[in-house]
Amino acid sequence: MGLKVLFSAPRSRWDEWRTPLTDAFSAEGLEVDLATDHPPEDVDYIVYAPNGFLSDFTPYQRCRAVFSLWAGVEAIVGNETLTMPLTRMVDPGLERGMVEYVAGHVLRHHLGIDRFLGTPQGEWEPVVPPLASDRKITVLGLGALGAACATTLAGLGFDVTGWARTQKDLPDVRCLGGAETLDQALTGAEGVVLLLPLTAETENLLDARRLALLADGAFVVNPGRGPLIDDDALLAALDSGVLSHATLDVFREEPLPKPHPFWTNPKVTVTPHIASETRPSSAAKVVAENLRRAEAGEPLLYLVDRTLGY
Amino acid sequence: MGLKVLFSAPRSRWDEWRTPLTDAFSAEGLEVDLATDHPPEDVDYIVYAPNGFLSDFTPYQRCRAVFSLWAGVEAIVGNETLTMPLTRMVDPGLERGMVEYVAGHVLRHHLGIDRFLGTPQGEWEPVVPPLASDRKITVLGLGALGAACATTLAGLGFDVTGWARTQKDLPDVRCLGGAETLDQALTGAEGVVLLLPLTAETENLLDARRLALLADGAFVVNPGRGPLIDDDALLAALDSGVLSHATLDVFREEPLPKPHPFWTNPKVTVTPHIASETRPSSAAKVVAENLRRAEAGEPLLYLVDRTLGY
Ligand SMILES: NC(=O)c1ccc[n+]([C@@H]2O[C@H](COP(=O)([O-])OP(=O)(O)OC[C@H]3O[C@@H](n4cnc5c(N)ncnc54)[C@H](OP(=O)(O)O)[C@@H]3O)[C@@H](O)[C@H]2O)c1
Ligand SMILES: NC(=O)c1ccc[n+]([C@@H]2O[C@H](COP(=O)([O-])OP(=O)(O)OC[C@H]3O[C@@H](n4cnc5c(N)ncnc54)[C@H](OP(=O)(O)O)[C@@H]3O)[C@@H](O)[C@H]2O)c1
Repeated sequence: MGLKVLFSAPRSRWDEWRTPLTDAFSAEGLEVDLATDHPPEDVDYIVYAPNGFLSDFTPYQRCRAVFSLWAGVEAIVGNETLTMPLTRMVDPGLERGMVEYVAGHVLRHHLGIDRFLGTPQGEWEPVVPPLASDRKITVLGLGALGAACATTLAGLGFDVTGWARTQKDLPDVRCLGGAETLDQALTGAEGVVLLLPLTAETENLLDARRLALLADGAFVVNPGRGPLIDDDALLAALDSGVLSHATLDVFREEPLPKPHPFWTNPKVTVTPHIASETRPSSAAKVVAENLRRAEAGEPLLYLVDRTLGY
Repeated sequence: MGLKVLFSAPRSRWDEWRTPLTDAFSAEGLEVDLATDHPPEDVDYIVYAPNGFLSDFTPYQRCRAVFSLWAGVEAIVGNETLTMPLTRMVDPGLERGMVEYVAGHVLRHHLGIDRFLGTPQGEWEPVVPPLASDRKITVLGLGALGAACATTLAGLGFDVTGWARTQKDLPDVRCLGGAETLDQALTGAEGVVLLLPLTAETENLLDARRLALLADGAFVVNPGRGPLIDDDALLAALDSGVLSHATLDVFREEPLPKPHPFWTNPKVTVTPHIASETRPSSAAKVVAENLRRAEAGEPLLYLVDRTLGY
């Protein structure tokens, strides 16, 4: 009957993943029995997404690895019952979607597109925006997603600074590494894009003091995780005009509760965690490749470092 | 006293052009007397923009070339008193600005950004857009600006078709050439970008029949020239839902008159001819290079073909 792989994700996802995963396992020459209801003691591998039924991994004694379908693993990385290796998702489709979202919203703010939308007044006021080369954008996080966004923004002509834990080397991006360089990365930035994972180190990273380092009228685009930003500090910076706009895709609580001030603040754009999504057609191949590696005793790709939390 | 160069553009432009042009002429080793008021019979060259004071070139008997500061020369190309060579503007700054405008508005429509703006309802409805690779975009006109936009859109992942009078060869762009391929270029396109010059051949190019070839719910971005599109056909296609949106930067009459239906149609975005602008810092060098060529008897760059009209 082959390897027993448990698909643990919201039921609604089963239909879109079943065929791509099955096909990808076959393409790797793996004999796999993929199901949503294997008895825990029989399970060899788990394909995991948050909001599924699984929170206690204790009964999965045979399970040799958990493959996350999400890039962000903060919901599972601290789970003490999860003692087997955990991989996060790096997927070309996920990356492309994020690049499009980030490029779209950064260009929107750069060009001042909102000014021309809504109820037009018939006012013809030609003011040409500066070129992207005169616009300083800082990307926080240079992993699979942040690096792709930073290089795309640089390719569009923006003056891009990138920041990560460790020093990177990306074409046409001024790369800074380490906590001690964060202030430098933020100082004078006219736009900030957050693509950090949520960890103890990154929570509330963008606080009142750091927001004050940005250029006057800067904008923030956060497709990373809600708690990376101190919400109250963000609202205060928008109110005072230090920030001109925040486009937020992720929130401390999702769905964002109806009474939350983000919904009604005209300087905040709320998108409902749609910046990007793992795409089954490309991502199933990544899962299958990792399952093949696990069976062959080769090192897994995109292994989560449980100490770092991502 | 050197060469007498007349700056003929709206007075308001003199301040921003004077120093860059003077510096660029010096850098080419040219001795130039640049002014807005040389006597016509003394003028060696004319730097020209529409809406200046000049419409009759007859008295400029000595003048050896007219250098347009604009890429679009439809306002001057048919002027029968203009018998000397005429060049249009190709400027790296103009090109970058156009690429940013086009990328920004195409991504905006692709991502459906407008849905999240305006008066938010507190509705959390996560629908992830398709990837750019599943979005067919057609760029009409593959000159200095169209080619740069088409390759940038292809670089962002879009499925790009480009169309011009003559066959081009651009990386990752499906290029079509000649009038007989226009229907093919438009059929099934989900977004159309117009970067054609206005000529007898291109006027009303996007008419009712051709709009009907586009994919259902397609969008149009026109930073080319207003008369490239049949306004009534465009409004009808928006009303019937064949088109989802039109973002227009250029119009038959500019400023767009207040009672024009484009101002109030929620499916139309009006931008006030700001898609891109010739940037004095880079463009002055192009003018100086052409003046040097003219003096040296070398062929001029970006010479307008008076028969073709661009
Ligand atoms: N909104 C959405 O739809 C959506 C979709 C997918 C992902 N996401 C979010 O995007 C995040 C990034 O994804 P990814 O695949 O790019 O992750 P990744 O490859 O793990 O990259 C994380 C990046 O953040 C940096 N980083 C981590 N902790 C840091 C710290 N304390 N200080 C400085 N830099 C730090 C890492 O630095 P090093 O490289 O030096 O280790 C790395 O560059 C995910 O964690 C998730 O939260 C959101
Ligand atoms: N909104 C703004 O702010 C703004 C700013 C600058 C320019 N513009 C507009 O943008 C236009 C394009 O500028 P550009 O510098 O890219 O011009 P360009 O270099 O002269 O290119 C024109 C392109 O249009 C093609 N074309 C011309 N007539 C055609 C026809 N009958 N059928 C098919 N293709 C045809 C040409 O084909 P071939 O290459 O085969 O000759 C060429 O590819 C300008 O004319 C101007 O109207 C607008």
